Amino acid sequence: MHNLAMSEAARPLLEKVVRHIRENCDPALAEYERLGRNRQERFSFAPGQLEILDDLKVRAKSAGLWNFFLPDAETGEGLSNLDYAYIAFELGKNPLAQQSLNCSAPDTGNMEVLERVGTPEQKEKWLKPLLNGEIRSAFAMTEPDVASSDAKNISTSAVLENGEWVINGEKYFISGAGDPRCRIMIVMVKTSPDAEPFRQQSQILVPMDTPGVKVLGPMRVFGHDDAPHGHMHIVFDNARVPEQNILWGEGRGFEISQLRLGPGRIHHCMRSIGAAEKALDLMIHRGLSREAFGRKIIDLGKNMETVSRARIEIDAMRLLVLKAARAMDVLGNKEARIWVSKAKAMVPERCCRIIDDAMQMHGATGISQWTDLPEMYIRQRTLRFADGPDEVHHHVIARAERQAFESSNDRQAAVRNWTIRN
Amino acid sequence: MHNLAMSEAARPLLEKVVRHIRENCDPALAEYERLGRNRQERFSFAPGQLEILDDLKVRAKSAGLWNFFLPDAETGEGLSNLDYAYIAFELGKNPLAQQSLNCSAPDTGNMEVLERVGTPEQKEKWLKPLLNGEIRSAFAMTEPDVASSDAKNISTSAVLENGEWVINGEKYFISGAGDPRCRIMIVMVKTSPDAEPFRQQSQILVPMDTPGVKVLGPMRVFGHDDAPHGHMHIVFDNARVPEQNILWGEGRGFEISQLRLGPGRIHHCMRSIGAAEKALDLMIHRGLSREAFGRKIIDLGKNMETVSRARIEIDAMRLLVLKAARAMDVLGNKEARIWVSKAKAMVPERCCRIIDDAMQMHGATGISQWTDLPEMYIRQRTLRFADGPDEVHHHVIARAERQAFESSNDRQAAVRNWTIRN
Amino acid sequence: MHNLAMSEAARPLLEKVVRHIRENCDPALAEYERLGRNRQERFSFAPGQLEILDDLKVRAKSAGLWNFFLPDAETGEGLSNLDYAYIAFELGKNPLAQQSLNCSAPDTGNMEVLERVGTPEQKEKWLKPLLNGEIRSAFAMTEPDVASSDAKNISTSAVLENGEWVINGEKYFISGAGDPRCRIMIVMVKTSPDAEPFRQQSQILVPMDTPGVKVLGPMRVFGHDDAPHGHMHIVFDNARVPEQNILWGEGRGFEISQLRLGPGRIHHCMRSIGAAEKALDLMIHRGLSREAFGRKIIDLGKNMETVSRARIEIDAMRLLVLKAARAMDVLGNKEARIWVSKAKAMVPERCCRIIDDAMQMHGATGISQWTDLPEMYIRQRTLRFADGPDEVHHHVIARAERQAFESSNDRQAAVRNWTIRN
Amino acid sequence: MHNLAMSEAARPLLEKVVRHIRENCDPALAEYERLGRNRQERFSFAPGQLEILDDLKVRAKSAGLWNFFLPDAETGEGLSNLDYAYIAFELGKNPLAQQSLNCSAPDTGNMEVLERVGTPEQKEKWLKPLLNGEIRSAFAMTEPDVASSDAKNISTSAVLENGEWVINGEKYFISGAGDPRCRIMIVMVKTSPDAEPFRQQSQILVPMDTPGVKVLGPMRVFGHDDAPHGHMHIVFDNARVPEQNILWGEGRGFEISQLRLGPGRIHHCMRSIGAAEKALDLMIHRGLSREAFGRKIIDLGKNMETVSRARIEIDAMRLLVLKAARAMDVLGNKEARIWVSKAKAMVPERCCRIIDDAMQMHGATGISQWTDLPEMYIRQRTLRFADGPDEVHHHVIARAERQAFESSNDRQAAVRNWTIRN
Repeated sequence: MHNLAMSEAARPLLEKVVRHIRENCDPALAEYERLGRNRQERFSFAPGQLEILDDLKVRAKSAGLWNFFLPDAETGEGLSNLDYAYIAFELGKNPLAQQSLNCSAPDTGNMEVLERVGTPEQKEKWLKPLLNGEIRSAFAMTEPDVASSDAKNISTSAVLENGEWVINGEKYFISGAGDPRCRIMIVMVKTSPDAEPFRQQSQILVPMDTPGVKVLGPMRVFGHDDAPHGHMHIVFDNARVPEQNILWGEGRGFEISQLRLGPGRIHHCMRSIGAAEKALDLMIHRGLSREAFGRKIIDLGKNMETVSRARIEIDAMRLLVLKAARAMDVLGNKEARIWVSKAKAMVPERCCRIIDDAMQMHGATGISQWTDLPEMYIRQRTLRFADGPDEVHHHVIARAERQAFESSNDRQAAVRNWTIRN
Repeated sequence: MHNLAMSEAARPLLEKVVRHIRENCDPALAEYERLGRNRQERFSFAPGQLEILDDLKVRAKSAGLWNFFLPDAETGEGLSNLDYAYIAFELGKNPLAQQSLNCSAPDTGNMEVLERVGTPEQKEKWLKPLLNGEIRSAFAMTEPDVASSDAKNISTSAVLENGEWVINGEKYFISGAGDPRCRIMIVMVKTSPDAEPFRQQSQILVPMDTPGVKVLGPMRVFGHDDAPHGHMHIVFDNARVPEQNILWGEGRGFEISQLRLGPGRIHHCMRSIGAAEKALDLMIHRGLSREAFGRKIIDLGKNMETVSRARIEIDAMRLLVLKAARAMDVLGNKEARIWVSKAKAMVPERCCRIIDDAMQMHGATGISQWTDLPEMYIRQRTLRFADGPDEVHHHVIARAERQAFESSNDRQAAVRNWTIRN
Repeated sequence: MHNLAMSEAARPLLEKVVRHIRENCDPALAEYERLGRNRQERFSFAPGQLEILDDLKVRAKSAGLWNFFLPDAETGEGLSNLDYAYIAFELGKNPLAQQSLNCSAPDTGNMEVLERVGTPEQKEKWLKPLLNGEIRSAFAMTEPDVASSDAKNISTSAVLENGEWVINGEKYFISGAGDPRCRIMIVMVKTSPDAEPFRQQSQILVPMDTPGVKVLGPMRVFGHDDAPHGHMHIVFDNARVPEQNILWGEGRGFEISQLRLGPGRIHHCMRSIGAAEKALDLMIHRGLSREAFGRKIIDLGKNMETVSRARIEIDAMRLLVLKAARAMDVLGNKEARIWVSKAKAMVPERCCRIIDDAMQMHGATGISQWTDLPEMYIRQRTLRFADGPDEVHHHVIARAERQAFESSNDRQAAVRNWTIRN
Repeated sequence: MHNLAMSEAARPLLEKVVRHIRENCDPALAEYERLGRNRQERFSFAPGQLEILDDLKVRAKSAGLWNFFLPDAETGEGLSNLDYAYIAFELGKNPLAQQSLNCSAPDTGNMEVLERVGTPEQKEKWLKPLLNGEIRSAFAMTEPDVASSDAKNISTSAVLENGEWVINGEKYFISGAGDPRCRIMIVMVKTSPDAEPFRQQSQILVPMDTPGVKVLGPMRVFGHDDAPHGHMHIVFDNARVPEQNILWGEGRGFEISQLRLGPGRIHHCMRSIGAAEKALDLMIHRGLSREAFGRKIIDLGKNMETVSRARIEIDAMRLLVLKAARAMDVLGNKEARIWVSKAKAMVPERCCRIIDDAMQMHGATGISQWTDLPEMYIRQRTLRFADGPDEVHHHVIARAERQAFESSNDRQAAVRNWTIRN
C-alpha cells in the first residue's frame, strides 16, 4: 500500500508522453487557442483546429501512445491506476494533451464502462469508433431541478414500452455533448422507482441523434460555452431507444458509477495537480521577470512564502493522489473509495487557491488572455462540483472516520486513557 | 469622525435610488443581459440594449436622479462621501444601476477631475456632454510592460513639439474604451523624466479618434471581452494633441490621481459590498429551495455558518467603508488615504470569498449563466488589481502603522511596560 | 443607529480612564505579575499583590472612577453601552485596569442584575459591598456533563422544601470563585422542569460558605489555575438557601441572562480588541527592534502584510462592536442580540489570530514569560467558549438572516429577477 | 524515492513499540500526570514519577526496545529514517513513550552526534551513560538577544586560553537542562569570528556543573516551566572547559547541525502527526458522546467537515514526512534538506489547527485539564519555532524552487509556450 513508485515497466511510457507533450502539444497550443478565439460559429471547430488535433493524434499513434489507459482486451492487463496517475499529472500541464492521446473525459470513462460491461453489439457499435478516436461521447447524469449532490434524487425516467425505453427528463452540464463529433451518450435514468434506493437507477446508451433528444444549448461556465465541446443542457422528450441499449441490466446504475468514478476522479485530480504545477512555474517566472519598488516581484512581501506554500501543497496533494491510486490497485475501487474522496475533496479546492495566487502575482495580466490562468482557474473551480461537490466527499470521509473509530476498541481505549473525565 | 449616519438631507435621494433600482433596473436586467448574449458584433450594443439604457436614463432624470455625485457648480456643495457611500451600496446590487444614473466609472472620476481642474474650454468640450450622458470616457493608466503596482514605473511619454504633445507608449486594461460612445480619454503620461519622482507624470486629454491612437483589441478578463465597453489595449504611436489638452499643468499627474482615487475606491468598495449582499440573498434563497439527504441545503454541513460569516463580514466591511468615506469628508482625501487603503485591501478579497461561497451552495448552477454569480465573482476578482493591487494597499497601511508607532511615545512606553525583556 | 461617536458628556471620563491606566496601572503591572509568579499558596494573593490592587482602587476612586458602569440609582441615567464600549477598549490593554475600577467580570454583570431585579434586602446584603469593592462574586452557569452550548440542557436542580431551595448538581468554570474575597454566587438552576423549555430555569443567590457547596478545585485553562481568582469546579450537594434568595421569581432565569449577557459580551469584545491592539503594538515593536538576514524583521517576508491585516481587522471589529453597543442603546438588549452575536462570533476568534501572529513575529520569546502574549492568547481562546461558543452565535445569526430573507418580499423578488432559473 | 513502505525487517519493531505504548505507557500516563500536578518542588520529579519512568524503561529494555534509533556501532547499519518515521508517529501519541525508549530529544540528536563525530574519550564519558539512560543532556543553541532564525547571528563566544575554551554568552530555551538528571550540554559557540560566515561556529561539550554556567531559571512556554525538564535560560560567565571538549574541530558547528537537524525534524514532525491523530480521535469521541439541540455534537454544523479535513490533512502530512524521510535515506541529509523543510513548514502549523479544532468541539472542557489538548497545542505551537521558525523553512523552500526553475530550460520553455506575452 505504501509503495508509491511507478513501475519500471511503465516508465518508458511516461517518458514518451512527456516528450510528446513537450515536442508536439506545447508548440501547438498557442496556435490552437488563437484559432479558437476567432471562431465564428460556436459549436463547430474553427478552420484549422481539427487539423491540429488530428495531427497530434497521428503523432501520438505513431509514438505508440494510444488508448494506453485501457486494459489489454485479451490479457486483461493494463496500466495500474498508480502508473496512470503519474501520466495524468503530465497531461494536466497542457489542455491538448489528453485529446491527442484519446484519453479525454468522459470518453475514457465511457470506454472503460463499455469494455467492462458492454455487450458485443454495444462494443462493436460504440466502443470501436471511440477507441479509434473517430467519434466522441458524453455522460448525462446531473439534473437541474434536484440537488445533484444526492444521486438518489435523479428523476429522469425510462419506461419500457414495446421493446423500447421511453426516456423523459432533463439533464445539464453534459460535457462534450456540443462537440460535432459526439455521437453517443450514456444516460443515468430511473427505471425502477419501486426498488430499494440504490437499485432504482440504470445507465443506458442514447445516440445523440435520437428523436426526442433536444439540446437546448450550452451551460456557460463563468460565462463560457466552452465551444466546441460545451456542457450541454438537454431535454429528453419521449426519446426512444431499443431495449438492448441498457448497460449491464436494470438497476445497476450505481454499480456502473462506481466502476467509472474512482479512476476518473484520480485522473482529474492528477491533471489538476499538473495544472497547479504549471501555475507555480508561471508564478515564479513572473516574479522573476518584473520589478517594482527596486526589487524583483518575487522578493516583495509574502511572495516567496506563497511560492513555498504552493510547492508544499502540490507535493502533499501529489502524494495523496498517488496513494489513492495505489489504494485502488491494491484494494479495488470500492474499498479505496474513501481515499478517492480524500483526493477529490482536497485537490481542486487547493489548486484553485494556487492558481489564484499565481494570478495575483501577475497583476492584471494574470486575469487576462495573456496567460492561461483564468481558464485553469475556471476548470478547477468547476471540478469542485464535478463527480460530487466537495461537501459530499467530506461527508463520506467523516462518516468512514467515525465508523472506524466506533469499531476500534483500541482507539476508544486510548481516548479513555487520555481523557480524565468524559 | 465616528458619526457614520447618513445625513437627513440625503435620505430622500437614497430612497429614490432604491425605488429606481427596484422598479426600473431590476425588471430590465434579465432582458438586457439576454440581448447582450446574442450580440453578433462585439464592440457595439446589441439591438435593443441601448434603448433599454436610454429608457432607464430618462426615468432616472425624470426622478431627479442625475449627476447627483457632483458638487453643485455654484455653491460647491454636494453629496458627502459618506452619503454617497450609502447610495453606492445600493448601486452594487444591479449592474445597470450606475449607468442609468450617469455615475459609472470611469466617467464619474473623469467628470470630477474636469470639474475641479479643467479649463473653461475643456469643460465646454468634454465635461458638458459627459454630464448630459451623451458621450462616455476612459482613463488610461496601467501599462503592460511595467509593474503597475509602482506608479513611478509608468513610461508612456509625452513630448512637447511645436505646440503639440507627442505621445508614445502602450496602455492596457483601459476600461470603457471599447464603448462606441467613448470619445475621450484621460491619459497618464511621463512629461518630465528629469523631475523628482512624483513630479514626472502628467494627465492629458486624448480624444479617441486622435491619429496614432491604435486600439489593438480588448483585454479579456477571465476570457470575457466585456463588450461593448471592454478593457482595451491601446498603443500610442506618435499621437498628437494640442498643448492645452494637458490637465492642471505639467508634473501634476499624481496630484490629480489623488483627487480621483479616493472617492472612486470608496464607490467601488460600496458597490462590491452591495454585490456581496446580493450574493448572500442568492445563497439563502438557494439553500432554502433545494433538499438533499432529507434536509434543506441550508441546513446541511457548514452552510448555516457560511451564511453567518457572510453576514458578519458584510456588516464589518460596510462599517469600515462608511468610516473611510467619513474620513474623506472630515479629513480630506489625503489624510484619509490610509482609511481608503484599508477599505480597498479588505473589501474585494472578502467579497470574492462570499460570492465563491454562494456559488458553492448553488452546486453547478452557481457557476452557470442561471445566476449572475460568475460575473459578480469576476468583477470582484478584477477589483483586487484595479486602483492598486491588494499588496500595495497593505504596504501603505503597514507603513503608516509603523510610523504611527514610532512617533508615539505613549505606545512605545506601554510596550516597554508590558515586555519584561526586549 | 449609525452614529457611533462617543457622547461629548462621556469623553472626559474616557480621558481619565486612559490617564489612570497609563499613570497607575501600566507601571504597576510588571511588579504585580512578578509577585504572582512567586506565590506559594495558590488561592490566595501573594504578599504585596492585594496592596497593589487596593492602592490602584484608591487612586481610581479619588479620580472619580468608580462604579461608572452602573446607571445612577436615582435618575436611572448612566453610561450608554456605546460610551462604555470606548472605555472597555482601553481596559483591554491592561489586565489590572478593570479590577482597579471595580468593573471586572462577573461582578459587573452580577451588580447590574442585582441593581435591576434585586429586592431591597438582596441589594443591602450583596450589592452594597460589591459596589464598595469589599467583596467579589461569581456566576455559576456551565455544567460539565451537558453540552453547555444548549442552555436548555442545564440540569442542576433547585427544589423548594420548607422555605428553602435545596440545590443539587455540578458546575464548572465558575470564574472568580477561587478569589478569597468571593462571597456570593448567582447560580443558574432548574426549578420548574415541567414548564415550557425557556421557563424552567431560575437564578438564585448562593453564598460561598453555604454548607453543601463544595469547591472541588480549579479548572485549569491551558494548564493554568488562574489563581487567585480561578475557574472553579463546584458540586452542590443538598446546598440550602432561603426561599427569598431567588432572583426576580421562578422561571425567569433566561430573562435575567438576557439582561446581563448583552452588555457583558460587548465589554468582553471591546477588551479583546484592546488586547489585539496591544498585540499589534508588540508586533511592530519587535519587528522594528530585531534584524535577521540584514533587514529589520518587520521588513521580512509577509510581516508588513501581517501588520496591515491586523490593523484592518482591529478597525473592522471595533466598528462592529461599537455598532452592537449602539444597537443595544437604541433597540434594547433583546432586539440587539443579533448584533451582539455578530460581535461575539467575530471578535475572539480573530483576536486569537492577531495575537498568534504577534507571537510568531517574536520568535520563541513570543511564547515565553517575556511578553504577555501567551496569557493574552489563552484569555481570547477561552472567550471563544464563554457566554456561548462561536458556533452557537453563528447559528443565531444565520437563523435571523434566513428569517429576515423569508419575511422580505423585496429581497425575494430581487433574487427572482436575478436568477434566470430557480 | 517513491517507495514509502516500511521495510519488512522493521515491521516487528513497530509492532513491539505499538504494543509497549498500549500496554505500558497508556495505562501509566494518567497517574504520571496526576503526580506531576502535585509536585511541590519544581525542578525535581514528584515522588513516584521517576519510578514510573524507570519501570517503563525496564519494560522497554526487556522487550528489546532500547536505543534502536542508533546505527549499529559495528556494522554501521541501523533503522532507516523511513522506518524510524513510522515509529515516531506512534511515539507522538503518548508523551511518555519517547523517554521510556531512551529516544527523547535532544538526547537522540546528541547521541547521534557523539556517535558520529565524538572522540573515544568523549564517547566513553558521555555517550555511554546516555545510551544507558543514566543521564540526560541538552543542546544550547538559541540566544535571546539576536534573531535566532538567522543562525549566523549566534554570538556566544569561546576563546582558547591556556588549553581551555573560555565561554561567554547567553542562551535560552535550552530544553531539558532543568532535568535533575541532565549532566551535559552541547553548546553552539562562535570560535572563529574572522572566518567566512558558515565557518565561524563550533559545537562544544559543556558539563552542567561547570563553574560559570549559571542557570537563571526556566523560560515558561505559555506560562509553563515544563518542570522537571524545563527550557532553561543560561548565562555562560567565563565558563571554562578543556580544549578537547570541542566536537569535530573548530568551525564545524554548522556541519554538525546538518547531521542532527534533518532526522530530528523528521522525528518531531512524525510525533506531531501522531499527536494530531490523537486529537482527531478525541474530537470524534467527544462529538459522539454529547448532544445538543437534539443531535450528536458531531452532527452539528461544520463538525463533520472538520473531522474530514483533519483526516485529509493528517494523511497528506504523513505522506509528505515519509517522503522526506525516504529522501534522507536515498539522497543524504544535505540533498534532502528541502524535503525536511517542507515537512517542518507544513506539519506543526497544521497540527496546531487540528488540535485547536478538537478543543473547539469539546467546549470549555477542551481547554481544561480534563483532556491533554492544551498541552498538545502548546507543544505544537512551540515547534513552529524549534529548529527554525516556519518562515525560515518557507524561505529555504522558495529559494530552492526558484533556483530549480532558473536552471531548467524545459520549465522555462514551457512557460514561454504558455504565456502569449511576457
